[in-house]
Amino acid sequence: MIVIDGLQYSNWDRELFTQLRQGGVTAVHVTLVYHENARETLSRLGEWNRRFEQHGDLIMPVAGAADIRRAKELGKVGIFFGAQNCSPIEDDIALIEVFRQLNLLIMQLTYNNQSLLATGCYEGSDSGITRFGKQAIAEMNRVGMLIDMSHSAERSTLEAIELSSRPIIISHANPEFFHPAKRNKSETVLRELGQSGGLLGFSLYPFHLHNGSDCTLAQFCDMVARTADLIGIDHIGIGTDLCQNQPQSVLEWMRSGRWSKQVDYGEGSASNADWPKPLTWFGDSRDFPNITQGLLQRGFSAEDTAKVMGLNWLNTLEQGLKPAP
Amino acid sequence: MIVIDGLQYSNWDRELFTQLRQGGVTAVHVTLVYHENARETLSRLGEWNRRFEQHGDLIMPVAGAADIRRAKELGKVGIFFGAQNCSPIEDDIALIEVFRQLNLLIMQLTYNNQSLLATGCYEGSDSGITRFGKQAIAEMNRVGMLIDMSHSAERSTLEAIELSSRPIIISHANPEFFHPAKRNKSETVLRELGQSGGLLGFSLYPFHLHNGSDCTLAQFCDMVARTADLIGIDHIGIGTDLCQNQPQSVLEWMRSGRWSKQVDYGEGSASNADWPKPLTWFGDSRDFPNITQGLLQRGFSAEDTAKVMGLNWLNTLEQGLKPAP
Repeated sequence: MIVIDGLQYSNWDRELFTQLRQGGVTAVHVTLVYHENARETLSRLGEWNRRFEQHGDLIMPVAGAADIRRAKELGKVGIFFGAQNCSPIEDDIALIEVFRQLNLLIMQLTYNNQSLLATGCYEGSDSGITRFGKQAIAEMNRVGMLIDMSHSAERSTLEAIELSSRPIIISHANPEFFHPAKRNKSETVLRELGQSGGLLGFSLYPFHLHNGSDCTLAQFCDMVARTADLIGIDHIGIGTDLCQNQPQSVLEWMRSGRWSKQVDYGEGSASNADWPKPLTWFGDSRDFPNITQGLLQRGFSAEDTAKVMGLNWLNTLEQGLKPAP
Repeated sequence: MIVIDGLQYSNWDRELFTQLRQGGVTAVHVTLVYHENARETLSRLGEWNRRFEQHGDLIMPVAGAADIRRAKELGKVGIFFGAQNCSPIEDDIALIEVFRQLNLLIMQLTYNNQSLLATGCYEGSDSGITRFGKQAIAEMNRVGMLIDMSHSAERSTLEAIELSSRPIIISHANPEFFHPAKRNKSETVLRELGQSGGLLGFSLYPFHLHNGSDCTLAQFCDMVARTADLIGIDHIGIGTDLCQNQPQSVLEWMRSGRWSKQVDYGEGSASNADWPKPLTWFGDSRDFPNITQGLLQRGFSAEDTAKVMGLNWLNTLEQGLKPAP
């Protein structure tokens, strides 16, 4: 089975790569940057090149869907890059194509806050896609870079779906009906996403789950089933949002970047400022078979389970990464 | 015939691309940057992507020798990038591979001045390849980026030839015996270059020529013949150093970058500060057939003429751009 994790952000080392392989993961969308500018993004790419050099027996870079099939054949884990924010392109539309050449396959238009392109899901007011945002969407469509609205606000997300000539993704979030959180998505957004051919990756980050860290596998699989009924079995996948071995300083970089002198607790709070306690049934990448089993037990067919676990992601990448004709 | 120009730096537009095609040029090494840092280099790459988008009927990007053959088949001009200085990598060895991924195929270790890697040909004292320089040479060898010593000093150049595990190039310069100039190369350098399998591209920049702008085609071809005798017919090519339509401000950027508050006249002087007057027989890219004819008239065989006009460059790129085994 091809298993694709639609988002992880970890402090990568050989042990974590080994765990991906032990969990049967064929490819993983890794977060390259949160708030890094263009120059800093080059350094992150350089660090990944070094990992490919040092751990080439375990991992390989993914420039397109064909590389994921090759990773499967070779028994390696394919690594594909995404940016959680549009900071790498700064104010320069030309950098979309330049970073696409460097295998940045996915870019979020916002990360919680207002960006130059759109409004994030933590802002009080959502003004939709900006002038630059419209140009950036057209350019991402042209070069074949996937638009990810995981951390974006409702109106911006609906406008991105409407403006984009190609399907977009929400790589890691859950339906609001399962757990009301600013990061989770309304039925309206989910329905439009599905109808436009897009993909939702289900998050396993406790802050996105019903009962948080105590959410059960059965509850999670119920949510998957209900979402499949709502938007179609072809438009859902997994995006665990697994963050491993990151120090507190990185959590602070994710949440506050350089934009705030005050502590921003993101989805946590002053009394709950640390990383959330992990799920018992999904502690790290070795636990992917638990999700597969959970879906089968919930009544998903083998075929539908394979779609959710990886084939839908593969198809989305296959279609979305080609340059526009 | 495959014709390759081993260096041009022009203010590119559709007219200049058309002239390249009219002159029968199959591919040209274009200078991407002089003193630009990493971030600025991304903008230069973005500008080239725009040119490829707008003039895709005339030009195409070159990522390797196979693309030059494809350009020939398609009747387009292949464009390959080089940096005249190591400024794009700043102090970060990882940026060598990152820029190689963006099709930076060639990098000079210095541009006239001391760099972090080596000594330029205008410095009073040449301390050879630096500690960082040794690491950078090994990394360029590994990823398949050609080392260009056109603007480097003697000792640095000899050490680069010695340290590099793969042949290096001097993309645009002439022998000192033809015209004594700081930019032209000693017989020692040329002999070592040839013996190590490297390539010299002959410059048509008047400051590098006997009698400057009054140098005749016959004199130029005599120099080619004498150099072929010295280092071998397989180790020479053309690197015109043609700079067209550039304003004075760009000449000043080339010569002084950000490193000097005083005017540096480079190869000119206070009384001769502008671009040199062009040669009568080589005014722009349409005049390549004059060089071909000159070589044939000087007694070069058709086969040897084809080597000098492009095949040696093609072979150098073919060998030099592969990643190390």
